[in-house]
Amino acid sequence: MTNFQIPPLDSALKSTLQQKIDQKTKPLGALGKLEELALQIGQIQNTLTPQLTQPTMLVFAGDHGIAQSGISPYPQAVTAQMVLNFLNGGAGINVFAKQNNMQLRIVDAGVNYQFEPHPNLINAKIGMGTASFLHKPAMTQSQCEQALTIGAGLAKKEIDANCNVIAFGEMGIANTSSASCLMSVLCNVPIEQCVGRGTGLDDAGLAKKTEILKQALQYHALDAQEIMRVLVAFGGFEIAMMVGAMLGTAQHKALLLIDGFIATAALLVAAKLQPNILHYCVFAHCSGEAGHRKLLDYLGAKPLLDLEMRLGEGTGAALVYPIVQAAVNFLNDMASFASAGVSESTGVSEKI
Amino acid sequence: MTNFQIPPLDSALKSTLQQKIDQKTKPLGALGKLEELALQIGQIQNTLTPQLTQPTMLVFAGDHGIAQSGISPYPQAVTAQMVLNFLNGGAGINVFAKQNNMQLRIVDAGVNYQFEPHPNLINAKIGMGTASFLHKPAMTQSQCEQALTIGAGLAKKEIDANCNVIAFGEMGIANTSSASCLMSVLCNVPIEQCVGRGTGLDDAGLAKKTEILKQALQYHALDAQEIMRVLVAFGGFEIAMMVGAMLGTAQHKALLLIDGFIATAALLVAAKLQPNILHYCVFAHCSGEAGHRKLLDYLGAKPLLDLEMRLGEGTGAALVYPIVQAAVNFLNDMASFASAGVSESTGVSEKI
Repeated sequence: MTNFQIPPLDSALKSTLQQKIDQKTKPLGALGKLEELALQIGQIQNTLTPQLTQPTMLVFAGDHGIAQSGISPYPQAVTAQMVLNFLNGGAGINVFAKQNNMQLRIVDAGVNYQFEPHPNLINAKIGMGTASFLHKPAMTQSQCEQALTIGAGLAKKEIDANCNVIAFGEMGIANTSSASCLMSVLCNVPIEQCVGRGTGLDDAGLAKKTEILKQALQYHALDAQEIMRVLVAFGGFEIAMMVGAMLGTAQHKALLLIDGFIATAALLVAAKLQPNILHYCVFAHCSGEAGHRKLLDYLGAKPLLDLEMRLGEGTGAALVYPIVQAAVNFLNDMASFASAGVSESTGVSEKI
Repeated sequence: MTNFQIPPLDSALKSTLQQKIDQKTKPLGALGKLEELALQIGQIQNTLTPQLTQPTMLVFAGDHGIAQSGISPYPQAVTAQMVLNFLNGGAGINVFAKQNNMQLRIVDAGVNYQFEPHPNLINAKIGMGTASFLHKPAMTQSQCEQALTIGAGLAKKEIDANCNVIAFGEMGIANTSSASCLMSVLCNVPIEQCVGRGTGLDDAGLAKKTEILKQALQYHALDAQEIMRVLVAFGGFEIAMMVGAMLGTAQHKALLLIDGFIATAALLVAAKLQPNILHYCVFAHCSGEAGHRKLLDYLGAKPLLDLEMRLGEGTGAALVYPIVQAAVNFLNDMASFASAGVSESTGVSEKI
């Protein structure tokens, strides 16, 4: 398995960065979360003049055996149909990535369909979908390690091509079930607090989903310390590959943009393996999916956006990108009190 | 005085727009607030294919006599210094407007300084700052009407030049005091719930500001029905001109992007005069300034962003622009289930 070592942030420049921020022509702290972003990105890149280059959205797609248990209102075939929609440019993530000049790559981590080659499609298929985790692990240990290694390699390839910010999206019918189980075990939270309506279950559908996942959790009977076994048990291929890509991104000191519930569940696995990864992450959007807010709290994460979206695909991360860019821009381009000849506070000012 | 007549939204296309949104390749409602925006903008423009053209940021600047009472940690001269900073491209709003391709115009509504002509500066000076509203009205009735008329004319000029979305920002040392008094009288809320730390008052400064504003409110003893007299009493010139520009923008069916506390206070005045204006507004950001959230609640407004900013200048509105653009883009550019060949929900789906 790829050996990940994610260092803590280099804080050598922290106070100089803060000073630079405080000298901008604005009241102290008046740019709020943008100031925190500027401080974070400056530290990640270890410079007073950070830049975001070749922003890239990786959308990982995979199918899930558990989808056969009727826990989603959409048939499994929709995963492949949506991948084709991504390749044809018609999905939400296409629109938002294009608007914000992000490169978009679709990664087939294990969709139950053989796609024709396409310039935006990365064939990294581990299998034709995972096994149902009702009565056996979703994947083998070897498949899981393969997914992690491939994921890390995909991130490295982007970073080698001068990208320093990677956003993570996903597509996979039933993958909220997979994410809910990962969260329940790794955070040690009852499954009822981790499940949600996914793409739109009604009350009866939600109750059925909860009951099925409870059975699966009882069958596997894993605990939070067995991180790799939990990932092997509940999958999916796209989540495991995302874990690898996230670890690879942070290892090479690029910035991670974390979208909704499933991407955050992948990050949970990554953070259990390498806690320092959290310093490299920007949390994009708090999903309407129940469980996401609780998972974010567990990770100590505060997303920048809450637009009541629950689409996945990385759409929240694509929408947040201009705000992250704005943080870098104000740090580089705003005048200081001295350079602009603006009087500073007369002294009763304080950071509020 | 300019005669404003703002019609309600034309709802003829509402259900067709909603149908178009629901046919996009995503679960019902999954784009959350972006769907509400698409519906609103489609109705304002009365089309299924709305476009945002020539987005323009108008930053209104003015000085306030009340600034002499020590209710801001910055000296009055900072208003003019910041206007020069805007003209030199060094302020936060310059950086964010440029990033998002918004035209930026600085309107001198009444700064206590004579500026040299500049291509981005609109000279609309009503006076060299308002009078202190401690013991007399901030402006005359005639000055107030002049400000409204000029403001409406500025909006019309932009719209005639093919702009259909106008964002509102402001600069004026002590203008949170002005906005707090407008809010207190027009919403009939005690001043303590309307004041905040502005650019950074400490506890003692906040107590002093509250006491001074309480005296001013007692002196004028106006009630919520006397809308124009309240605006005349508490000003400022930049706020009155913004009121006129907002009314003019809605009258010509352009979209309004409303930034923080002061712009929202101007909108409060406008909405008291013409309640339909609210249908044309997008609320950008919930300011860190105390009172703003309460004012938004009063207007039934839910801002899209909460980045803990409190800078003014229109910065929140500039930052929200890409999200508004994204709403228009998904409506125009996303594929439908039929066009993309994606299976729809099997029926257990519901909008959550």
